[in-house]
Amino acid sequence: MDGKRVIGVDLGGTKILAGIVDRDGQVERRREHPTPVASEDDLLDGLDQAVEELLGDDIAAIGFGIPSPLDQRTGRALQAVNIPLTGEIDFRGRMGQRFGLPVGIENDANAATYAEFHFGAARDVRTTVMLTLGTGCGGGAVVDGQLYRGWAEFGHMVIVHDGLPCQGTCTGRGHLEAYVTGVAATKLAHEVFGEAVDAHRLVRLAAEGEERAREILDGIGRHLGSGIGSLVNIFNPELVVIGGGFAAAGDFLLDPAREVVRREGLAGAGARVQIVRAELGTAAGLIGAGLVAFDALA
Amino acid sequence: MDGKRVIGVDLGGTKILAGIVDRDGQVERRREHPTPVASEDDLLDGLDQAVEELLGDDIAAIGFGIPSPLDQRTGRALQAVNIPLTGEIDFRGRMGQRFGLPVGIENDANAATYAEFHFGAARDVRTTVMLTLGTGCGGGAVVDGQLYRGWAEFGHMVIVHDGLPCQGTCTGRGHLEAYVTGVAATKLAHEVFGEAVDAHRLVRLAAEGEERAREILDGIGRHLGSGIGSLVNIFNPELVVIGGGFAAAGDFLLDPAREVVRREGLAGAGARVQIVRAELGTAAGLIGAGLVAFDALA
Repeated sequence: MDGKRVIGVDLGGTKILAGIVDRDGQVERRREHPTPVASEDDLLDGLDQAVEELLGDDIAAIGFGIPSPLDQRTGRALQAVNIPLTGEIDFRGRMGQRFGLPVGIENDANAATYAEFHFGAARDVRTTVMLTLGTGCGGGAVVDGQLYRGWAEFGHMVIVHDGLPCQGTCTGRGHLEAYVTGVAATKLAHEVFGEAVDAHRLVRLAAEGEERAREILDGIGRHLGSGIGSLVNIFNPELVVIGGGFAAAGDFLLDPAREVVRREGLAGAGARVQIVRAELGTAAGLIGAGLVAFDALA
Repeated sequence: MDGKRVIGVDLGGTKILAGIVDRDGQVERRREHPTPVASEDDLLDGLDQAVEELLGDDIAAIGFGIPSPLDQRTGRALQAVNIPLTGEIDFRGRMGQRFGLPVGIENDANAATYAEFHFGAARDVRTTVMLTLGTGCGGGAVVDGQLYRGWAEFGHMVIVHDGLPCQGTCTGRGHLEAYVTGVAATKLAHEVFGEAVDAHRLVRLAAEGEERAREILDGIGRHLGSGIGSLVNIFNPELVVIGGGFAAAGDFLLDPAREVVRREGLAGAGARVQIVRAELGTAAGLIGAGLVAFDALA
């Protein structure tokens, strides 16, 4: 280890997580700030402050995880979700100029995948895909040890042709995201149990043996299995990592997913592939942003 | 150009196409043989003969396109379609030993994609995905100038959760392949027009203005659009190439596909991406196998 350290910033819709990351994935001086969403200028000010309070002589680079498909050629965020970051600015270039350091940017779910690959649930495999189930559904892939740096917007694979409308600014129909997030679970829970039961409570009810709650999670898990099945046939991963807050549903979600994946995967891959929960929790994005910063040094 | 030449072999379910390929993608001494399907030994004998009749002092390597997901680590075909090639043998190793030359293997649709990228419809772009619509539906991707050498079995993405059963040995449900091939078109044509009308005739009827024929192709094209939409959100290609015999349906298929892709693609990608027909025809697999042979030299 060369002793170098970097700043990792995980930019989320509600909070900015920042910290100093070393090459072993250890995080120091982890900080959390609410995300300023009033304007793009406010947002950039907030990010600048989050970085500045961590800067020091030993910081070699900065990495950002951003909730958007990116254009890595131009350094721009193309369709940021819930935050006022437009494709008008060269985000990477601006940050590089401002801080005079190498800057790497990556989609937030790609960054989380990279962290799980290096230090988390996928540390013992060479090829993995990850899905993050939260408000939205993000995705990332590591192929033969290399982070796939393209879009990997697996939440926007079509799993039901002409199906449910997608969320937010996405005009798509039947995307995985419309079926497998905490938001989708809350919607189904409301229909069956009324407004008081959200995704979190739904999982608790299932744990207490509530049959209808288990059925809802089973249905969501089976849709998740269709998405994972597609990914198995594209990437043939050894392991699939499920992260994000709604991954707390655990095997209520993953067991039906595994059953469908066994059916969908070619050449026995559906039975071979392991489907497991993420291990790094909310730190995955931050650690992954740090890894992206180290890559920017290379 | 170094003057080196290679042998490319496109192994199909009904015929073996072989030829000598140079670095410009030019094919000489193209030969076609029926595929021996009685046994694996017969099949290997047939391949040996196809290679032997082209061997010469100037041949530097051999490449094979194989209709199966492959294990590139072990050189094996994992689930070959319509041909008696099992995962029991190290195909690449066997061929390398027999001919004493470097041997490359690749999935047949990956090989065709590689050829279209170098010399065909995608020669002016850096990132492309291809779907081949024939008896089955194959796929391949070139990402930032590099052939993606994993499975890329895009025909086995789920586009209808719990949908139509897949073909052959695939146990999946709702895979793209069940909706967009010539076989799928023939099935739909039989239902509407009776047994005399197959996919080929269906396209002719549509060209003659038959409304029901156009509706069938429109429905197939829309399903194709869902599959392409998923690929756009994973790979963000500049261009999507549609090849295989059923691509002859042309804009009867591609126009509805384009409409759905516009809806499904994130960040305007669905409107930006070009969807075009392949240019190399039946030679794509053979030329691509040659490119894979050149890669085996490197």
